Amino acid sequence: MKILLINGNTNDSVTAKMARTAEDAASPGTTIMPVTATFGARIISSRSENAVASHAVLAAAAQHHAGCDAVVIGVSMDTGLGALRELLPIPVVGMTEAACLIACTAGARFGVVTLGTRTIPMYDELITGYGLHPRLAGIEAVDITPADYGDAARITTDIIALMKGLVANRATEAIVLAGAWIAGQHRELQAHVPVPLLDGITCGVQLAEVLSRLGLKKATAGSHSHPGAKELIGVDPALIALYRNHQ
Amino acid sequence: MKILLINGNTNDSVTAKMARTAEDAASPGTTIMPVTATFGARIISSRSENAVASHAVLAAAAQHHAGCDAVVIGVSMDTGLGALRELLPIPVVGMTEAACLIACTAGARFGVVTLGTRTIPMYDELITGYGLHPRLAGIEAVDITPADYGDAARITTDIIALMKGLVANRATEAIVLAGAWIAGQHRELQAHVPVPLLDGITCGVQLAEVLSRLGLKKATAGSHSHPGAKELIGVDPALIALYRNHQ
Amino acid sequence: MKILLINGNTNDSVTAKMARTAEDAASPGTTIMPVTATFGARIISSRSENAVASHAVLAAAAQHHAGCDAVVIGVSMDTGLGALRELLPIPVVGMTEAACLIACTAGARFGVVTLGTRTIPMYDELITGYGLHPRLAGIEAVDITPADYGDAARITTDIIALMKGLVANRATEAIVLAGAWIAGQHRELQAHVPVPLLDGITCGVQLAEVLSRLGLKKATAGSHSHPGAKELIGVDPALIALYRNHQ
Amino acid sequence: MKILLINGNTNDSVTAKMARTAEDAASPGTTIMPVTATFGARIISSRSENAVASHAVLAAAAQHHAGCDAVVIGVSMDTGLGALRELLPIPVVGMTEAACLIACTAGARFGVVTLGTRTIPMYDELITGYGLHPRLAGIEAVDITPADYGDAARITTDIIALMKGLVANRATEAIVLAGAWIAGQHRELQAHVPVPLLDGITCGVQLAEVLSRLGLKKATAGSHSHPGAKELIGVDPALIALYRNHQ
Amino acid sequence: MKILLINGNTNDSVTAKMARTAEDAASPGTTIMPVTATFGARIISSRSENAVASHAVLAAAAQHHAGCDAVVIGVSMDTGLGALRELLPIPVVGMTEAACLIACTAGARFGVVTLGTRTIPMYDELITGYGLHPRLAGIEAVDITPADYGDAARITTDIIALMKGLVANRATEAIVLAGAWIAGQHRELQAHVPVPLLDGITCGVQLAEVLSRLGLKKATAGSHSHPGAKELIGVDPALIALYRNHQ
Amino acid sequence: MKILLINGNTNDSVTAKMARTAEDAASPGTTIMPVTATFGARIISSRSENAVASHAVLAAAAQHHAGCDAVVIGVSMDTGLGALRELLPIPVVGMTEAACLIACTAGARFGVVTLGTRTIPMYDELITGYGLHPRLAGIEAVDITPADYGDAARITTDIIALMKGLVANRATEAIVLAGAWIAGQHRELQAHVPVPLLDGITCGVQLAEVLSRLGLKKATAGSHSHPGAKELIGVDPALIALYRNHQ
Repeated sequence: MKILLINGNTNDSVTAKMARTAEDAASPGTTIMPVTATFGARIISSRSENAVASHAVLAAAAQHHAGCDAVVIGVSMDTGLGALRELLPIPVVGMTEAACLIACTAGARFGVVTLGTRTIPMYDELITGYGLHPRLAGIEAVDITPADYGDAARITTDIIALMKGLVANRATEAIVLAGAWIAGQHRELQAHVPVPLLDGITCGVQLAEVLSRLGLKKATAGSHSHPGAKELIGVDPALIALYRNHQ
Repeated sequence: MKILLINGNTNDSVTAKMARTAEDAASPGTTIMPVTATFGARIISSRSENAVASHAVLAAAAQHHAGCDAVVIGVSMDTGLGALRELLPIPVVGMTEAACLIACTAGARFGVVTLGTRTIPMYDELITGYGLHPRLAGIEAVDITPADYGDAARITTDIIALMKGLVANRATEAIVLAGAWIAGQHRELQAHVPVPLLDGITCGVQLAEVLSRLGLKKATAGSHSHPGAKELIGVDPALIALYRNHQ
Repeated sequence: MKILLINGNTNDSVTAKMARTAEDAASPGTTIMPVTATFGARIISSRSENAVASHAVLAAAAQHHAGCDAVVIGVSMDTGLGALRELLPIPVVGMTEAACLIACTAGARFGVVTLGTRTIPMYDELITGYGLHPRLAGIEAVDITPADYGDAARITTDIIALMKGLVANRATEAIVLAGAWIAGQHRELQAHVPVPLLDGITCGVQLAEVLSRLGLKKATAGSHSHPGAKELIGVDPALIALYRNHQ
Repeated sequence: MKILLINGNTNDSVTAKMARTAEDAASPGTTIMPVTATFGARIISSRSENAVASHAVLAAAAQHHAGCDAVVIGVSMDTGLGALRELLPIPVVGMTEAACLIACTAGARFGVVTLGTRTIPMYDELITGYGLHPRLAGIEAVDITPADYGDAARITTDIIALMKGLVANRATEAIVLAGAWIAGQHRELQAHVPVPLLDGITCGVQLAEVLSRLGLKKATAGSHSHPGAKELIGVDPALIALYRNHQ
Repeated sequence: MKILLINGNTNDSVTAKMARTAEDAASPGTTIMPVTATFGARIISSRSENAVASHAVLAAAAQHHAGCDAVVIGVSMDTGLGALRELLPIPVVGMTEAACLIACTAGARFGVVTLGTRTIPMYDELITGYGLHPRLAGIEAVDITPADYGDAARITTDIIALMKGLVANRATEAIVLAGAWIAGQHRELQAHVPVPLLDGITCGVQLAEVLSRLGLKKATAGSHSHPGAKELIGVDPALIALYRNHQ
Repeated sequence: MKILLINGNTNDSVTAKMARTAEDAASPGTTIMPVTATFGARIISSRSENAVASHAVLAAAAQHHAGCDAVVIGVSMDTGLGALRELLPIPVVGMTEAACLIACTAGARFGVVTLGTRTIPMYDELITGYGLHPRLAGIEAVDITPADYGDAARITTDIIALMKGLVANRATEAIVLAGAWIAGQHRELQAHVPVPLLDGITCGVQLAEVLSRLGLKKATAGSHSHPGAKELIGVDPALIALYRNHQ
């Protein structure tokens, strides 16, 4: 099986990091094909950067999905998720979506820990949009400025403190780690908290494999069916082709 | 006052139609400046087309907002709303958002009537995202194929029947008309139903005027504050400048 | 345009204060006509006082609405809102309703700050009744006794601390100032917090103007249509006439 | 035990009818003391009439509660419920509140059947305000004009059809009968439906007895504690006294 | 009237303690018939022990309900509530259900205080399952180990602190005391808090009496009607008979 | 990998049918170990039968989980799910839970189709308990009596009609097939509807494999941690041992 991993950040080092985590998570026989968005923010951390990325992820998918069996979106805002599901003939999974769904099997309510307080409402809206708000114990973010990224030890200390607080004060029974910085660190962090931690890329790859194996019917009605032969201008030819060639 | 009206559809005739409605709705002294997205779908009617438009609306806003006092987004999915609010120094209103908020002052619960059943879940998610689901009586859509657009009388008949059904069966007390096709037809349709109809462009222009007059502080914290001097590549220079020049 | 501003507190000095804020908020050409309830509590701060005021506001509206284009209810519990909407032929806006609706365009979630902890559940119910609970970040109240009203500086200090706490701890992105004491102080308080503050009277006047300009149809079906020629006894003749003369 | 039954409609024949049902429901040793509001609508069926009644119910309670052990509000909108709870030293129950709470012990979800479609949103808001919306299967109303009241057989036929529809189509497992017209008819109607019917006056009297027996502490904090020595003008002396004499 | 009180814990001393509280709560003429589950945990404090108890409570009810007028379930998780309602011909009440429903008449939002933090999500799910989440202010639990049970004074001090915190910080206006340890202590604890406390057994007995007096129809449709003549194996003959003999 | 499949119905033929579907769904290298509950209902279709099964599933798991890597609960009410998760050291998945979580990746809102209208509220409560109510489009059940089970063609026709109705009238974009009768028929039924169908056993096996591969930490705090060395009486020795031997 071949899984397309789309990094919506225009940042190859983040792509490489995600790809390593994805490869660790993949079953024998699964190949990860990582691609990086070609336009937009180096690191998405706001609504407007995310809005650009929703187009960039779509363009990358159009260019690279041929021959793949499933897609994992490598942005913790799951950018472009519904759009890809509608347009592509193969299953698509968002990394935070996957972690949240798996978290539902691991505890009564799950928390989310990330970096950057301004993203708290964005994750809240994302999870509410998934209909999972009743399962959400809380979202906590390390308050961070660009300069702080140099001090990894401080960030890690803060993350652990936030996780412990979620468990102690909000009856949190599982924790989703969100954001590119934390991605792949679940094994190290797990030792510090008494509840299971969930990594988006890891869960995303596993869930993508499941969806590929299940071979569910692609909807031919509703908002996840292909929109048909629509005309678009000014976008990547591969994207235009995805609409034009649809019978 | 000058209001930038951004049509996210790459379709000048829709822009012209919206502009006429906007001008009718504007107060004396308000000028409407209509612009059309330069890339993406001719008529947005799906998740993927909407994802592209979130970038296109942002690019258009970056290019044209200078000298404007407020923005109205002329796509009934309110495409790019949060992104624009975060990035621009002026108030931004979505046309469906505006109609739904005004509808809250006009009846206990409001319904939505539009064209194309596949957009029903999209409007449902939009309104749920606005936190207004408790006020939503129902969403109804005329089931339509591209060929049907030629038969305006049939569509109008269907719309009226759906509106009457919402009033009779779902205790609907106000109706939001959504979608480019219906935009501006509220006066004609009003005669057929006993509850007030709300037009997105009309409400959007009025609400944009209010926000401009109120002169609310632009947030300097949270998900609606400017994201700061971020680096983006491969996008319109005007958009890059909106990030680069921020102190 | 002429806007009737009804103070449901039997307190002329509060009426005068509200009227000044309303006049500041009004567009050129808009006249504010302030009236004071003739029976009930001097300052409404409880459920029972509010229950009396729902009648008093209705009586005042019956007596004074002739010749007006819209009504703003000058009680932060929006006392009698649905009743007035049903009975009067002109648009009606509640001051807290207006501030909450406008707040929805200014941030992801809004908080409310007021005086008197016993009103917290009342505001919670009010906002839940508006269907806006998903947008509510929290309600905070200065804990106050009648004697404390003499110490304005202390109250202001407490209000600022509560607002800062909402922003820091609850991801609050806009704040509605509620209660007669705070009304009109949004400009002074704004300097202390990084998110926009919303004043009920100011938002109410602006929204009332919009509703008047929109000229929405008065519903002839549902719970906001006029109840018809009903018989009431023992109430103000102007109120009786509002029912009796209805065709 | 003595229970004050307050009819918020200014209509002695409705009071007498309610009193008979209340007496049937009362335990041995319980006396019903029925009183009729002295101002407001003959039959409350709208928001504005209900707003007046919230004052009238309060005035009636002030005049007549001395010597009583509990209050049942005899208006199916439970008019003035929170106000009375706050102000009186004895327990207070709303007739619809009581029926809905008891319904929660009788089935998974309950429906409401009443007369007059315009009251559907009012009941919906009432039940949502009680936090019981998750238990509500649906609200159905016989569409009725004043002239229709003469045709009791037709109304009864319609009520039975609506009840059967709730059971068949909405998984309704208990039905609350709401409105003065239906009050007391639960025994006759029960034969026609396979799920239990709940009568507001009957449940209200039973629940009032329970609250009196439990002797719960009257809150001295929060929105249900007495508001203290507040000044009101222009209202019934008995009502003024309820505030003035409070230590 | 005869009320069957089923203790789902296999612990006679807890049964005796509950029986005393129940007898104190019962009206003159009501007899309490306490029984103890014959298999399962000595003290239920987890999901798995509760799962076993749902069978044990059912078996106990099958053996002992004959001649009784109503059942009160004496486990604060209300174990087996829906199952008993479906299977028995008499009314059934859960002790926590009863306390929560009565709490709804005593304050805007109620809190829950119990022992053992691991039960917090279980109570949250229970109350959400009752549809009462909108009324829930918060759930607090004394963090306790088996050894701590010897120090009753410390537990009581902690409970009082948690109750005061709920009132001060979460606008709690009534408090449900949950768990076998606290049961029956509401009178002593009431002196320490300004809002009413609710005891499950006390409320349960009162509500069971009401349901018996009301004589509501046993549903013959839906999930609370008897399931009919089903075949079960390997369970108590009394339980088998409850299915077998049903016409 | 070895997956324990527990049929909570005391019915070997249902176990065999489920086992075949599970084997079809399993990845190469995965072995299905099917077991049948030893006490309780032949076919669970009510609350009380389900209450007994929650004990029976627990006993079966205690007896058979040694040497297994994960558990799938083969009852569409996911009987005993939280109890098993708490008590066992290996992951546990409910068949309906799994289908609903996977359905969330396949459409905006999912419907449920089953047999027996009395189970509708039970599935509604189950899915609400999973926090997935916002994603639920509706639950439909074939109205069936025991005699009807002989007419498989009629049932299949009815199921197809219900599925088509969900798609046409409730914007359903994925359908979960629930109940032992339908289990394993998703391939045949899929041809009749334009949206993906989800089979509980198939999804359960796939999700169980994922959870086993992920190797999430077993919680040592909260309601899903082991309850410790508790004393139970009168239950299966294997179940007693699961508590007794815990350090």
